[in-house]
Amino acid sequence: MLFSDYEYQEYQERIVKTKQKMEAKGIEVLLITNPSNMNYLSGYDGWSFYVDQMLIVIIDEDQPIWIGRYQDANGARATTWLDQTNIIPYPDDYIHSDTKHPMEFIGDFLTQIGHGNSHIGVEKESYYFSALAYEKLKARLPDATLKDASLLVNYVRIIKSDAEIKNIKKAATIVEKAMHTATNAIHVGARQCDAVAAIYYELITGTPEYGGDYPAIVPLLPTGERTSAPHLTWTDQPFKDGDMVIIELAGCYKRYHAPLARTVSLGKPNEEVSDISKIVVEGLNEALEMVKPGVACEEIEAAWSKVTGKYGIEKEARLGYSMGLSYPPDWGDHTASIRKGDKTILQPNMTFHIIPGLWFDHYGIEISESFRVTENGCEVLTDFPRELIVKGDLGYDQPVIS
Amino acid sequence: MLFSDYEYQEYQERIVKTKQKMEAKGIEVLLITNPSNMNYLSGYDGWSFYVDQMLIVIIDEDQPIWIGRYQDANGARATTWLDQTNIIPYPDDYIHSDTKHPMEFIGDFLTQIGHGNSHIGVEKESYYFSALAYEKLKARLPDATLKDASLLVNYVRIIKSDAEIKNIKKAATIVEKAMHTATNAIHVGARQCDAVAAIYYELITGTPEYGGDYPAIVPLLPTGERTSAPHLTWTDQPFKDGDMVIIELAGCYKRYHAPLARTVSLGKPNEEVSDISKIVVEGLNEALEMVKPGVACEEIEAAWSKVTGKYGIEKEARLGYSMGLSYPPDWGDHTASIRKGDKTILQPNMTFHIIPGLWFDHYGIEISESFRVTENGCEVLTDFPRELIVKGDLGYDQPVIS
Repeated sequence: MLFSDYEYQEYQERIVKTKQKMEAKGIEVLLITNPSNMNYLSGYDGWSFYVDQMLIVIIDEDQPIWIGRYQDANGARATTWLDQTNIIPYPDDYIHSDTKHPMEFIGDFLTQIGHGNSHIGVEKESYYFSALAYEKLKARLPDATLKDASLLVNYVRIIKSDAEIKNIKKAATIVEKAMHTATNAIHVGARQCDAVAAIYYELITGTPEYGGDYPAIVPLLPTGERTSAPHLTWTDQPFKDGDMVIIELAGCYKRYHAPLARTVSLGKPNEEVSDISKIVVEGLNEALEMVKPGVACEEIEAAWSKVTGKYGIEKEARLGYSMGLSYPPDWGDHTASIRKGDKTILQPNMTFHIIPGLWFDHYGIEISESFRVTENGCEVLTDFPRELIVKGDLGYDQPVIS
Repeated sequence: MLFSDYEYQEYQERIVKTKQKMEAKGIEVLLITNPSNMNYLSGYDGWSFYVDQMLIVIIDEDQPIWIGRYQDANGARATTWLDQTNIIPYPDDYIHSDTKHPMEFIGDFLTQIGHGNSHIGVEKESYYFSALAYEKLKARLPDATLKDASLLVNYVRIIKSDAEIKNIKKAATIVEKAMHTATNAIHVGARQCDAVAAIYYELITGTPEYGGDYPAIVPLLPTGERTSAPHLTWTDQPFKDGDMVIIELAGCYKRYHAPLARTVSLGKPNEEVSDISKIVVEGLNEALEMVKPGVACEEIEAAWSKVTGKYGIEKEARLGYSMGLSYPPDWGDHTASIRKGDKTILQPNMTFHIIPGLWFDHYGIEISESFRVTENGCEVLTDFPRELIVKGDLGYDQPVIS
């Protein structure tokens, strides 16, 4: 694939930063299996992470090496900035086989290129590097020193470049549009699946200027009692008068995300729900007020807790997390969290999803924002009413936002 | 959640079959982290597999135990047939933490319930059981004997029950509908993302009788030269006259899949493409003719190879695979493959996706079918023209299937 000088330069900077961290940890060879990290350093983009694949960064080599399934090598040629010679396919009979494992191929390859006894970093906590894969690799590299380098590249990614911020902002435009579609599509009598179909349409069609990519998590849409559980998806049942509906979505552009959550009440909410949602918004506002370079993540959480504590509410789960480039199953970066004890200091161009969800036994509320840390404060990335969305029960065909 | 007697009975049968395999392998406690296997045995359904969670089957206990994140416990209550007491949440500060790991909680729990020194099976090749998770668990269970039980439940799942077949057939109806939408939406001038938006809409809205679930793989839509790489997704570029477009989709109903692939030629295909697509269909037809109980998977592949060999074509990748219940990132069962050397004997109610894709340097073709092995033959699950779809170039607004 052809890359502009600007893009090429961006990849070079990422490689340099990665190598600095490798050097600091005494890692000569870094084996990257997290697809977000593979994409970040090489541009590789394909739905092939369900089989073993890897990007190898060698401290004294200019280019990383991509290793993957034979049929995916053309995908690497189409999407990365790497030379043809740095794209190494393994044969298909290694796939889902009980006699061969791709990590054996990769271990042998590392030995062949003279790294059988190197200090090798692996991402032990990557979704797509199984316990068995690690064992197979280790057995094939008896003279290597293997080290855990799970979040090494994730921590390079924690501060976004201007090019990355542009992508996240495009994702934000998409999610804002999709949230409007969602709140319109959710009305008494409509089926949950039909609302999600409309939401998906928006997420993928994007805007007239640019299209959407698939988000790393599907639209979450717990409805009714199911709002007590944040990670439930939709059913094909119709929305009923009195239902609460949580909508958690992300727009996605070139694998960059902007998540957003809102809660809809179909019909007038009861007093408890109404009160709780106001507390959530008050806490969220206070937390956002705190955001600026130099502040620690735990201080943002403290601003939230101060508000909710006043009302006797305690949130068990963390309040938010760093986000950006990602592949399924999660759009979080797995680095900084906005929670008690997290001492990560905010710096410009860090990006977070702050999601003060509260889940009780029979209902839940989520009202979230994605934000960027600016030079001196906070930029909320979407512009959508920060409140419980109450919809009148006007029948099947007249949805409105009250 | 309330389950009917019939459904409850179905889960009991699955548990019994799983325990038989555990017994045969000397496993007293089975730790299941593959979300498909968790769903298969408990009904658990939620997008929470991006954090550590587990279903524990104990050989002499009636019910499995679900362990997961605190905020997901209500989801387990909402979707499984398990008693409340068998749903065990761990606190949120175990999530993406550098000081605590959920597997430590789980190891301690196993010790507390008297299984610290048992023979314990783990799914070492599950996507959502990382190398680090395994190490943390192992360190916490120094007296246990850990065994690999990666595909134990997958092999229970290889023969589908009648209830499962019903779900797969509903998925097949959905994918058939979505493939019609796809071939209509793909036309010169339309953007790739707009075609996928329309496809997604169909996959999720489903039919008036039942809605669709999210497929384990997003719609794949390599276009133009990118058809040489099967796992590329869409861009926001418009389709051009002369483009080839591969569409690989699955309908999904209650996590059960029916995949289907077709290739569209925008404008008259050249002779090579036309010839190759006829060979693919001829080979596919011969392979499907072979399908009946008692035949080995490799014999189906041989029927295909006999046809393609005649024309001097060799396919590097496997021809197909067992499929059904699944979560991202793959809708395959990871058990039987239709390929050389696979001696799995077909039995009634096995289900496969047979996908004779051919990828060359500058283009590729895929024409696939999902099928069920019947009592005496083969039931193809969808009814869609089994051929290269050639579309005339009639401009932006008049898509037709020629």
